[in-house]
Amino acid sequence: MELKYPLIALNFKTYLEAIGENSLKLARIAEEVSKEYDVGVMVAPPLLDLGRVVKEVEIPVFAQHVDPYKPGSHTGSIIAEDVKAVGAAGSIVNHSERRLRLADIGMILERLRENGLISLLCTDTVQTTRAGTALGPDALAIEPPELIGTGIPVSKAKPEVVVGAVEAVKRINPSVHILCGAGISAGDDVAKAIELGTEGVLLASAYVKAKDPKRVLSDMAEAALKAWERR
Amino acid sequence: MELKYPLIALNFKTYLEAIGENSLKLARIAEEVSKEYDVGVMVAPPLLDLGRVVKEVEIPVFAQHVDPYKPGSHTGSIIAEDVKAVGAAGSIVNHSERRLRLADIGMILERLRENGLISLLCTDTVQTTRAGTALGPDALAIEPPELIGTGIPVSKAKPEVVVGAVEAVKRINPSVHILCGAGISAGDDVAKAIELGTEGVLLASAYVKAKDPKRVLSDMAEAALKAWERR
Amino acid sequence: MELKYPLIALNFKTYLEAIGENSLKLARIAEEVSKEYDVGVMVAPPLLDLGRVVKEVEIPVFAQHVDPYKPGSHTGSIIAEDVKAVGAAGSIVNHSERRLRLADIGMILERLRENGLISLLCTDTVQTTRAGTALGPDALAIEPPELIGTGIPVSKAKPEVVVGAVEAVKRINPSVHILCGAGISAGDDVAKAIELGTEGVLLASAYVKAKDPKRVLSDMAEAALKAWERR
Amino acid sequence: MELKYPLIALNFKTYLEAIGENSLKLARIAEEVSKEYDVGVMVAPPLLDLGRVVKEVEIPVFAQHVDPYKPGSHTGSIIAEDVKAVGAAGSIVNHSERRLRLADIGMILERLRENGLISLLCTDTVQTTRAGTALGPDALAIEPPELIGTGIPVSKAKPEVVVGAVEAVKRINPSVHILCGAGISAGDDVAKAIELGTEGVLLASAYVKAKDPKRVLSDMAEAALKAWERR
Repeated sequence: MELKYPLIALNFKTYLEAIGENSLKLARIAEEVSKEYDVGVMVAPPLLDLGRVVKEVEIPVFAQHVDPYKPGSHTGSIIAEDVKAVGAAGSIVNHSERRLRLADIGMILERLRENGLISLLCTDTVQTTRAGTALGPDALAIEPPELIGTGIPVSKAKPEVVVGAVEAVKRINPSVHILCGAGISAGDDVAKAIELGTEGVLLASAYVKAKDPKRVLSDMAEAALKAWERR
Repeated sequence: MELKYPLIALNFKTYLEAIGENSLKLARIAEEVSKEYDVGVMVAPPLLDLGRVVKEVEIPVFAQHVDPYKPGSHTGSIIAEDVKAVGAAGSIVNHSERRLRLADIGMILERLRENGLISLLCTDTVQTTRAGTALGPDALAIEPPELIGTGIPVSKAKPEVVVGAVEAVKRINPSVHILCGAGISAGDDVAKAIELGTEGVLLASAYVKAKDPKRVLSDMAEAALKAWERR
Repeated sequence: MELKYPLIALNFKTYLEAIGENSLKLARIAEEVSKEYDVGVMVAPPLLDLGRVVKEVEIPVFAQHVDPYKPGSHTGSIIAEDVKAVGAAGSIVNHSERRLRLADIGMILERLRENGLISLLCTDTVQTTRAGTALGPDALAIEPPELIGTGIPVSKAKPEVVVGAVEAVKRINPSVHILCGAGISAGDDVAKAIELGTEGVLLASAYVKAKDPKRVLSDMAEAALKAWERR
Repeated sequence: MELKYPLIALNFKTYLEAIGENSLKLARIAEEVSKEYDVGVMVAPPLLDLGRVVKEVEIPVFAQHVDPYKPGSHTGSIIAEDVKAVGAAGSIVNHSERRLRLADIGMILERLRENGLISLLCTDTVQTTRAGTALGPDALAIEPPELIGTGIPVSKAKPEVVVGAVEAVKRINPSVHILCGAGISAGDDVAKAIELGTEGVLLASAYVKAKDPKRVLSDMAEAALKAWERR
């Protein structure tokens, strides 16, 4: 299952609001909004809930992390073959809460490709975005870690970082889809992100911990679509 | 669901033979043998298959790893609340292929206890077994890493290490159940392990990669029971 | 060179106030106070300054960290043979800012012993202190990480943790020397630590960042001696 | 002190042959050869010997590793300010025996620049070399880890990898100096590396563990010069 743009990528992390049955509920809402607005929505549930969520929804479901190993003698690891076997579409790689070694990122991207899985690589600065782009992931999300979870949107607080990432992708590898994240909490933040040249956003708490997740996501989907048409 | 002794603990690792549907098949065989011989059998499937396996069998199913975090802003982590939510009985901790920091092991054991989950802590030497015992896990498996996957059974090649571990538990914390592992591949190795004072074994490839897993496990179960009665 | 008790162990960390020449200055003051008051003082300068500090003072100088490896193909590592070669007396192990895996701690303690070096193991809770004690270090410092650098002394804020550590040592391995640390910033905190049954303290910022390090350390040395005599 | 090309970069690792006094001896030989042949030679001694070696020789001396932190509350770390304070010229970054996270590499390169230190970044594949080049280090050494220490020279066994790295640098950031390493053990391997478009080599055991290090290095220097003139 391919990613559709503009894209709202929803990282459920391991919030209590996203564990077990909650994960299914949040994934179903995401599916509804995706269909209603015809906008791309991807969900990344906690790893232990991945298989169940995949079976319940018809939008792309991602692992939050995958290890660089091939199948074998690796206890407690997440391997690409199993991400594929449970039916997920791809994996987040190198999230700021799960930073990886450069050499391992290289291997992980290769392992995902070998298994027909989509990669969404996270980076933290314009400099590492240049590097990340050169590695050739399918998509890349720049997220200044100091803004994650703050509600201060990167698209408004650090537009130069977003623009720098967009330019890095254009110059080094234009086939990479570029998103931004950190502090994204309202439709307006999403619109601004798209206006700066991205193809969508990556967010977590603003959706997962919302009182009314459907309303929050609907607002974002609507704003994303409008900004996308204005491009 | 409690562990039953003598116990044969089966770590599926991330072998290709244990991914997706294969995991269910191997777990069902384990359940059959457990019931047929009335011997404890525990299975630890790949993390992404954990939830499905739990639903299919009535023997204890363990996570291969769990992180020390509470639910929250932790992407790509395995938290105890989710191990509980999918219905698993406990978790392996500090396997030689997923070594953990001492401070994190302390936190993980606490997190498992808080969630009513059983801990099976792995250690590598008599010295670290003493330390591990002092941490108070429910069960502990000593596995000299140099023998893992070799087919040279710890219970025959290094009986002094197994005996040292048994003594460490007796002296420091007799409530800890003690297993041994590494190179265990036949009923005879299991019998020897129990004769040395353990309450069972932890193994992986000898079961997962066997041509006839049912026969291998049946032999081990029979040998375990006989040795257990002779104690 | 052996450690002398009561002991004030000074971790210079990598504070700007302790880099290069500053390290020598702080070490010389520590030496003066140690001789003046006849109390044990140990210093652990930044790793790159270790060799120079050792040559300048006649008190025990420790590495802040050492790796578990034998000499060989390990780039960027600190090996026990080199800690010995530059003339240091031992090493801190598993500081809260350099947490180590249980299996590695086991190997490090063995590597230090093989090289005739003293080990000072750090732990964070009573539970991990029990485990650490079972590993048989020469000395152990319990430091609740949440108090490090706060100025709130563990000996006053969490006396039950200090007492629990003292008891753990007595019960499991009485040959281990027990210190406490975190928030220790005045003579009174040191006195209290010794009254609770420890043989000294481990501290950093209160000495390294003091306007008058000599006065701070002299007060601590005096208080330590008095409390030591009252035991 | 700047690097001079063609460059033979000598990583002493933590071989027994390079610890303590041995490090000085090996560094002095390197200096002699550098002067005799007027070819660039850099040495990276074990971290604890860094300061002493810097004082003894007039060729560039590098740290084998540096951490991403600023001076502060970081026990057991190597910080750029201290690398500078002891007089070293720069640091190796991300050696295959000390792999680093992408985000940390970004920070380390910035920290080295801030302190006027030279960075030599190691990578393992053409793909990660593209990424590494985009990060903008002063120099980059591609070393396929499977050849390290084998005596099978990368410049002969995997010329396509070396050429791929040279092209990556040209395309993405031509200001980066490019070296190759792994299995380099004779003058001929060095000549071949330069013929493929590199500006030198990075090696370890072939020099450090040689019966006659001076002869080995002289052969390499001579071959490097000749190949350099033929370019």
